[in-house]
Amino acid sequence: MPIDSAQIKKLDQLDKISTHINEFYIHDSSLIYLDGNSLGRLPKKTITNINDFMLNEWGDQLVNGWENWINEAQISGDLLAENVLGAKKGEALVCDTTSVNFYQLCSAVIKLNPDRKIIITDAANFPTDRYILEGIADTFGLKLVIIDNEETDANEYERITPDLIRPYLNNDIALATFQVLQYRSGALNPMREITSLIREYDCLTVWDASHAAGSVNLDFAKNNIDLAVGCTYKYLCSGPGSPAYLYVKKSLQKKLQVPIQGWFAQKDQFEMGPKFIKSEDIRGFQIASPSILGLRCVNTAIKIINNASIPEIVKKAQKGTDIMIEFYDQWLKSLGYKLMTPRDKYKRGGHISIMHENARSISVALRNFENVIVDYRKPNQIRIAMSPLTTSFSELYEGLKKIRNVTENKTFKKIKDFDGKKIY
Amino acid sequence: MPIDSAQIKKLDQLDKISTHINEFYIHDSSLIYLDGNSLGRLPKKTITNINDFMLNEWGDQLVNGWENWINEAQISGDLLAENVLGAKKGEALVCDTTSVNFYQLCSAVIKLNPDRKIIITDAANFPTDRYILEGIADTFGLKLVIIDNEETDANEYERITPDLIRPYLNNDIALATFQVLQYRSGALNPMREITSLIREYDCLTVWDASHAAGSVNLDFAKNNIDLAVGCTYKYLCSGPGSPAYLYVKKSLQKKLQVPIQGWFAQKDQFEMGPKFIKSEDIRGFQIASPSILGLRCVNTAIKIINNASIPEIVKKAQKGTDIMIEFYDQWLKSLGYKLMTPRDKYKRGGHISIMHENARSISVALRNFENVIVDYRKPNQIRIAMSPLTTSFSELYEGLKKIRNVTENKTFKKIKDFDGKKIY
Repeated sequence: MPIDSAQIKKLDQLDKISTHINEFYIHDSSLIYLDGNSLGRLPKKTITNINDFMLNEWGDQLVNGWENWINEAQISGDLLAENVLGAKKGEALVCDTTSVNFYQLCSAVIKLNPDRKIIITDAANFPTDRYILEGIADTFGLKLVIIDNEETDANEYERITPDLIRPYLNNDIALATFQVLQYRSGALNPMREITSLIREYDCLTVWDASHAAGSVNLDFAKNNIDLAVGCTYKYLCSGPGSPAYLYVKKSLQKKLQVPIQGWFAQKDQFEMGPKFIKSEDIRGFQIASPSILGLRCVNTAIKIINNASIPEIVKKAQKGTDIMIEFYDQWLKSLGYKLMTPRDKYKRGGHISIMHENARSISVALRNFENVIVDYRKPNQIRIAMSPLTTSFSELYEGLKKIRNVTENKTFKKIKDFDGKKIY
Repeated sequence: MPIDSAQIKKLDQLDKISTHINEFYIHDSSLIYLDGNSLGRLPKKTITNINDFMLNEWGDQLVNGWENWINEAQISGDLLAENVLGAKKGEALVCDTTSVNFYQLCSAVIKLNPDRKIIITDAANFPTDRYILEGIADTFGLKLVIIDNEETDANEYERITPDLIRPYLNNDIALATFQVLQYRSGALNPMREITSLIREYDCLTVWDASHAAGSVNLDFAKNNIDLAVGCTYKYLCSGPGSPAYLYVKKSLQKKLQVPIQGWFAQKDQFEMGPKFIKSEDIRGFQIASPSILGLRCVNTAIKIINNASIPEIVKKAQKGTDIMIEFYDQWLKSLGYKLMTPRDKYKRGGHISIMHENARSISVALRNFENVIVDYRKPNQIRIAMSPLTTSFSELYEGLKKIRNVTENKTFKKIKDFDGKKIY
C-alpha cells in the first residue's frame, strides 16, 4: 500500500528526536536538504561556543589558554569514543584530516609486518584512501590489491562480505582496509566478521568510518575493532574541513608506531628533549597542535548527538532509508531509477543511492528549480540522505516527490550547461 | 645614555603602524603581553568574519559552499605568498600543521635522491622537526646528523652559518633542514647563503619559517628559497592550532612527490578515478579538506599584515629588539642575565632571549604578580617579543622594567610551586 502524507505526518509525530532540529541554524526553511551525509548543518550552540572561545579564551587568556587546550584532542577524542564510536576513553583522538590519520594508521600497521607484501582494499573505497594506499605501496614496494566490487548488477553491490574477500586472503597480507559504510552505495559492511576473518591471517584492518559515524551503531569495543579513522563534517555536523579522528584499540597503542612522530606524541612534550620517546597511550598518535576552533565545533555537535543518543539516531536513519526505499518502489523505479543500496536496514546507514542515466541533470534541476539538495556521484548516481538530527520524514517525502516530478516532467532537460561546476 | 620614558613615548608617536593595535581585541588593557611570538592576539575582524562564515556560508549555503571553498587552501596560500613570504602566486598552500607539511616536504626531497644517506639539521631546531626527522631517518635507513649549536658561550649561539655547517657537507646528503629563525635564541639564519651553499652539493634545504614569518623579510623569491613550511598562530595571529603553510618553488612542483597523496592532490579531483595522477602545480601538495574556519582566520590576519606592510613590520621588530637589548644592557645584565640573541638587528626577528638561573620562577612571578606574560624556555631562558602589530614600545618598556623589578626585589622567590603547570 502506498505511503501517503498522513502516514508521514504520523512518523514525524512519533519521532523521538524530531525536536533536535530546533538546535540547528536554519537559514531557509523551504530548502529540502538531503545531503547531510556530505556536510551536516550548523548547530546554533556552535555559534555561541565559537564566539565564547574567541572572546573568552583566545582573546582573553592568550597563550595561557594552552594550559587548557594542550590535551584537547584527547578530550574531544574521549567524547567521540564514548558517545559515537562505542569505544573507551583513551582510545580516540580528534585531530588532523581523515587522510592524514589514515596514512598514519595504515603505515603503522605495515611497519608491524615488514616482510609481508600485500595491501588489500576495494575499488569502491573513497578515492583519498585508495590514492594514499597507492603512495604507501609505492614507497615500501608493496602490492596494492584492489578488490573489484563496482559491478552494478552484483547481488550486493559494493558490499564487503567474507565471501568477497576470502579469495584475496593469505599470510602475505600486511594491511586490509575498508570503509565501514560505502560512500557511494551506502552499503554497510559487516565490520566484526571482516575484522575477525582477516585477523585469522594475523593481519589488522583499518576502517574508515567517515560515512557511517552518526548514522549506524559502530560499537567498536563490542565489534572488537582494532583501528579506525573518520571525518566529523558529515552526520557529526562539525563544519567544512573540521578535524577528523583516529581510533586505536588500547591493547595496540604501545606497539604501533606512526610515521609522522611529532612533538605532541613525545612522552614529555615540554622537556623538548633531544630524542623522540613515544607516549605509550593514545597521545603517541597525535602529531601537533589541533585546531581549537575545530575541536569546539566537534564537542558541541557530539553533545547534541549524545542527548539524542546513538540508538535513537540509528533507528531514525533506518526508518528514513526504509521510507526512501518505499518511495523508490512507489514512484521512482518505473521512471528508470535503480536502487543501489541494500534493502535490509541492517545493511545501510543514513543514505541510499539511486542510479539514473540523467542523474547529473536531475540533481542540478532539483537545486535550480525545486530548492532540493541531493548529492550527485559520477557517472550516474544520486545519493539521498536522512541526517537523523535534522531531517524530518516530511522533508524526505517532499524531496522524493520532487525527484519524481523533475524526472517525470522532464524539467531536468532544461539543464544544458553545468557552468563548469562540480557537485559535491 | 640610558633610555627614558620620554624617548619611549616618542618612539610610539613615530611608529607608523601603531594604530593597528586598534584592530585587535584587547580584553585586559593592563596586561603586558610579550609572548606574541607564541600566540598572536585575536583580530576584531576575525570575530566578524568567523560569524559571517558560520551564518552566511556554512549555515546558509551548506554543501553548495564547497563550490567556493574547494580551492581555498590555494587562495590563502596566494595571500600568504605575496604578502608575507615574498613568493609568487601558486607557490604556497595554507593547510594542515607545520609538522605534517614538514614531513611531506622533507620526505619528498629524500625521495629525489634515494641513494643518498644523510639528513642534516641542528640541535637547536624545534623539537617537532627533529622528532619527525628521526622518524624519517628510521623508516628509510638514513643517518640523521645533528649539528651541535647549543653551546651557550659560542660566538653566535645557535646561529646556522656557512662555517658551522661546511664540515658536515658532502655528496651523501639527501636533505638539509633548519629554522629560518631559531625558536629559542631568536637568531636569524642566513637563508640565502645556506641554501646556496647546500645546493653546491646538489641538495635541497627545507626551511621552517614558523618563528620568522611576520617579523622578518622572508623574500623567498629573492633569496632563491626552494622549500619552506611554517605556522600561522604566532606573528600571523590566526589563533591556536590555526592551519600551517607550505611553500614549494614553482620549478620544483612537478618533480617533487609527497608521501601522503590525498584526493586534493589528484589532477581531476571529482572524477574520483581509479589511479592517482598528481596535479603538477601546488595543488599536488594538498592532502585533504582544509579547515575553512581556520583559513578565514588566516586570511583576516594577513590582510591586516598587508595593510601594515612587511617592511614596516620588520623595521618595528628590529627597533623593538634594539630597545629590548638596550634595556638589557641598562637594567638586566648586572642582575645575572645573559643575552642569547645576536646584537646585529639583521640577525634577529621579533624576539630576544635572556638567560638567568631563576628564569622559571621569574617568568611565573611576572605572570602572577605583575600581569606580564613572557615565555619561559627550559632550562633557564626567557623569551620576550615585540609583535609588531600589537606591541607598543611603552609596553616593552613597562615589561622590561617589571622584569628588572621582579629580579631585583627577588619577589620571584615567592614562587615555590609550579602547580604542575607548563609554561608555553
